[in-house]
Amino acid sequence: MIATPSRKDAREILALNIKSLRAERGWSQEDLALEAELHRTFVAHVEMGRRNISLDNIQKIAGALGVSVGELLS
Amino acid sequence: MIATPSRKDAREILALNIKSLRAERGWSQEDLALEAELHRTFVAHVEMGRRNISLDNIQKIAGALGVSVGELLS
Repeated sequence: MIATPSRKDAREILALNIKSLRAERGWSQEDLALEAELHRTFVAHVEMGRRNISLDNIQKIAGALGVSVGELLS
Repeated sequence: MIATPSRKDAREILALNIKSLRAERGWSQEDLALEAELHRTFVAHVEMGRRNISLDNIQKIAGALGVSVGELLS
């Protein structure tokens, strides 16, 4: 079987995109957390690739950053 | 505040893409479940938009279908 991307890849893509979009907006992790109605430490862990985030929470973050879920994971 | 997409949207996009890619391959839900190392009823519920699936499991399904996580959610 051909090797499929490791699980960590999607977490890394998500983390990099969140950090990059947050920086573009000049937002702190706390700003993003407030906008997405999530906890700041949760956002911090997602940005470190340490959380197996659910799709509903990915959508909250995408909505807060004004991008689609597909964009946030590409 | 501008309305952001509802949470259900991402679930619906995911469900439609999984069903479509599975059909292209002529796979049953069980075939996909086996390939992704998930339970058949889990796959069925995801295809009905009833599960708040985690990113790691989205990546398993994407890997089984041979697409990226970004594609599966676009």
